[in-house]
This record gives sequence, C-alpha cells and structure tokens, in this order.
Amino acid sequence: MITVCDVGPRDGLQNEPDVLPPETRAELIRRLADAGVPRVEAVSFVRDDRVPQMAEAERVAELAAGVPAELSGLVLNERGWERFRATGLARVNVTVAATDSFSERNAGMPRAEALRQTVAILEAADVPSTATISVAFGDPFVGSVDEGEVVEVAGRLAEAGAGELVLADTIGVATPRAVRRLTERVAALGRSTGGHFHNTRNTGYANALAALDAGATMLDASVGGLGGCPFAPRATGNIATEDLVYLLEGEGFATGIDLSALADISLWIAGVLGRDLPGQLARAGIPRPS
Amino acid sequence: MITVCDVGPRDGLQNEPDVLPPETRAELIRRLADAGVPRVEAVSFVRDDRVPQMAEAERVAELAAGVPAELSGLVLNERGWERFRATGLARVNVTVAATDSFSERNAGMPRAEALRQTVAILEAADVPSTATISVAFGDPFVGSVDEGEVVEVAGRLAEAGAGELVLADTIGVATPRAVRRLTERVAALGRSTGGHFHNTRNTGYANALAALDAGATMLDASVGGLGGCPFAPRATGNIATEDLVYLLEGEGFATGIDLSALADISLWIAGVLGRDLPGQLARAGIPRPS
Repeated sequence: MITVCDVGPRDGLQNEPDVLPPETRAELIRRLADAGVPRVEAVSFVRDDRVPQMAEAERVAELAAGVPAELSGLVLNERGWERFRATGLARVNVTVAATDSFSERNAGMPRAEALRQTVAILEAADVPSTATISVAFGDPFVGSVDEGEVVEVAGRLAEAGAGELVLADTIGVATPRAVRRLTERVAALGRSTGGHFHNTRNTGYANALAALDAGATMLDASVGGLGGCPFAPRATGNIATEDLVYLLEGEGFATGIDLSALADISLWIAGVLGRDLPGQLARAGIPRPS
Repeated sequence: MITVCDVGPRDGLQNEPDVLPPETRAELIRRLADAGVPRVEAVSFVRDDRVPQMAEAERVAELAAGVPAELSGLVLNERGWERFRATGLARVNVTVAATDSFSERNAGMPRAEALRQTVAILEAADVPSTATISVAFGDPFVGSVDEGEVVEVAGRLAEAGAGELVLADTIGVATPRAVRRLTERVAALGRSTGGHFHNTRNTGYANALAALDAGATMLDASVGGLGGCPFAPRATGNIATEDLVYLLEGEGFATGIDLSALADISLWIAGVLGRDLPGQLARAGIPRPS
C-alpha cells in the first residue's frame, strides 16, 4: 500500500493566484478525504498578511476536523509550531532546503540555522512528523545539489526524531536515475521515505515511480496539479493526484483511493478557480474497462 | 544511442486546428534536422480535401529535400504508396490498428483487410520501412486490447518485411507495466522495436522509459507536444520531443540532439500557432548546469 498525500490545499493553493476562503479550502479537504485520500496537507502556519492564500489556518483546521483522513500542517518556525499545537491536526510537516542559497532566499536564513530550528520543532513534536528536504535534486540559484549533503541533512532530521523523510524536487528538474539513487540512500536511514515531485519538465510521474522502486512508500501530489512553480511563472508545479493514482493502479500499487471521485474533485476545483488545471486524467476521461 | 523520430510535422500538425502552408511545414522539418533530430516524419499521403493539414505532401517533401535527417512519410493505401514512390523520402511508414473497431472507424475497413493492404505495401517497399500498430494498449471503443493479438499482427508485419515495429498508445491509456510486457514480446520478433506514446493521462514519459527498458531503440515524439487527441478534444497528444530528450539525457541515453536548439523550435512553432503547447521544458527553461 502506497500512502498518497494530497498537498493541494497547502502547496497547491499557496501557489495559485486566487485566494480561496477557509470554507472552500475545508470543503476541498473534506472531498479529498471522502474520496479515500489517506492524508491531506491541510494548512501552513504562516503570516496571514504574507501569504493570504493560507490565511486563517486555524479556521480551516476547525472546519475540516473529523474528516476520514490524516490531516497535516506545515510549520516553518517556532511561532508556527505554537499555532499548530492549538489545533487538532494529526501530523506536523517541517521543511529544510538542501542548499544555503535556497534557504536564504526562501526562509531568510542559512541552511544551518533553518536546520537548527527544524530540529527543535521535531524534538518537541508529540505527533507524527514528516521532514521534507526541498530542492533535493536541484536549486534554481546554484544548479545541481550535492547528494552527500542531502543525505547528511536527512540524517540530522532522522536523529531529531522525524518519522518520515521526504525528498522534494521543488523546481522540477530531477530525472529518475537521480531520484532512485538518492531515495535509496535516504531510505537506508531507516525512516519511512517519501517523494514530492513537480512536473515542471514532464519528469514528475516517472520520478514518482523511480522513488517507489527505490523504497519510498509515500508520495505527495495535488489534485488537478493545483499550484504552479514560483520560479517559472508559466510552468507546472505538483504532479496531479488523480494522474498519479491512475499510474499507480496500472503498476499494481494499491492506494485505497476512488479514482472516479478524485477526478470529479479535480474538475470541481478547476471550476472554482475558473481555469483548466495541469492534471490530464479528469479532462481526458478514465478509460473504459475491458 | 536511441533514435528519436519527431512526428510533429505529421502526427502533430495533422491534429492541430490550424492549417500551415507547405513552406512552414518544410521549415519545421529543416529546423528539426538542423537540431540533430535523426528522423522526422514529414508528411502523410492522404487526400488534400480530407485532411487539409497534410495537403501538398509532395511539395513539402521537395522543399525539405536534403536536410540532414532521415525523412519518412505515412502511407495508408496503394494510392498513397504510388505518391510516396514519386518523392525522394527515405522511409515509408505504414500503420494497422490492433482492433477491428478502431480499424473500422479510422481506416473504414476491418483489421484483416487493413493488414492485407499494409502487407502488400511492405512487400513492395524498396526503402526502409516502419510498421506502427495503433491502439496497441487500449481502444476508445472497446477498452482493453488483447496482447496476443497485437503480437500476432506484429508477427505478420515482420514476415512482410517491416524493418521496424512500433507499438502506439494512440489514446494515451497505457501504463509502464503493460508497455514493458508488450514491448518485450514484440522485440522478441527480431526487428527493431519502437514506441509511440501520447501523454493524454500523463503516463507518456514513464511509458517511453519502460519501452527502452524492454528493448525498444526508437521513440516517436513531437516537438512541443504538437497535436492533440482526436478522441478527447481538450486532451494532450504526443509526448514532447524536447521533454523526452531532457529525460533521456538524465537517464544517460545519447540522442545526438541539441536540446537547446530543440527548445527554441518548440517556442517558435508555438508562436506560429499562437498558443502554448503541452511541452513544458521550453517554457520552464533548461536547468542551469552545476
């Protein structure tokens, strides 16, 4: 069984130009859970004025409480962790960039300091935790990323108690060979291992399969492929959950997800946003069975 | 070395709503050849009034003569074969549907009759030939396709002298496991084997890798992902040549193609057509090297 985590309500909507109200975001979470998606990244605890797409995280968590999925929240600093603790969310997500350059531009601090703060949150966490290493396969500012350094960061996060380690191809540059190699090394650390792939250059789905092949058991995706790429305005972001599930089913992996219901959610949220999303299955149709 | 055949000037443009003049089609072929694409499907010999996108095939072949690539032309019947012979094209492509239902709707005759006509062309051919089996992984009318029947058709085409056998996922429903299985069986017939994948449900690139893994040495793709899916109006067709080459390079396969030049052609033809194409690399950018 592969655990698919739908990150549409967080990583997806955060990178959409439209700002949806908490009620719609909670409705999206509820629909995903009802379709059998086992885990949903529901919110991010950031400043409402800085990221209006993620405003009122507590309200979204409250409205979505009780849905039949594990709900997670992204925590970037101590203030975020305090806010997380006041909700009933089941899982905390933390993230560290693989490179100094990306950490400086994205989190406003060097990687070492970001890692220190992340380790503190992981050590304090009394709920299941996921630690994601962003730009693990390439960085928009420096190009390629040293594989050994990624494994070292992963090791520090594992020592700090991270229950799950996720390798993120934040800018969508990875190809399967690199994914397989790095995933194997991180899986060897003995924690659950996951992959977070963007389809920015059409390699995302092949990368997802390569990660599973190398020992990953969790994959992030966003329904419809919600969310873009902040580093390439006309480019695609996350792989689409329904397209991923179609691929996984074809490969014989069980996900527990109702593909038809998921495709309907993709069309629904595309209608809410008023545009076609990058996910293709919902538009093309689920093939008729033999 | 993997042989990539750009089918944009034929399968791509044939499925675009715009009709481009022979001069622009020849210019596309010339640019692809100059970028190092080793083979280009240049034209289809069909009735000009039926398929205006492919009109004046002879004129296109004449204008493109001498470019540094092997140029092929699609021949669907004896009249097409007569027209092909009057050109200097280097390779003839023929195609047979894997199912009766698709053959009836697409070629207007049962599969057995289409196979008989195709065999006659292959037996007469005095140039290298490629035989493509369409809807080899799924048919829009009947659903799944019997694998044994596809292998049987492939065997007949090989006996008739086809130098290359190509399995086409015409409606973009295949997943890698099925591609690997069927490609292995067809490769065992002892001819060069290729794959023709559509990305209609975002499985096309993973399928291309699976085909190579199973022994294929030729892959079709169209620059920019030119061409749609006639069975799902808002859906994507061919995998994009530049995205495929990016993936292949990451996997360590040599193609001899200049990726940067190819991305420029994708943006150029998108400009000619006045719309974004499904290929993503050209829009997102080639990642900066380390």
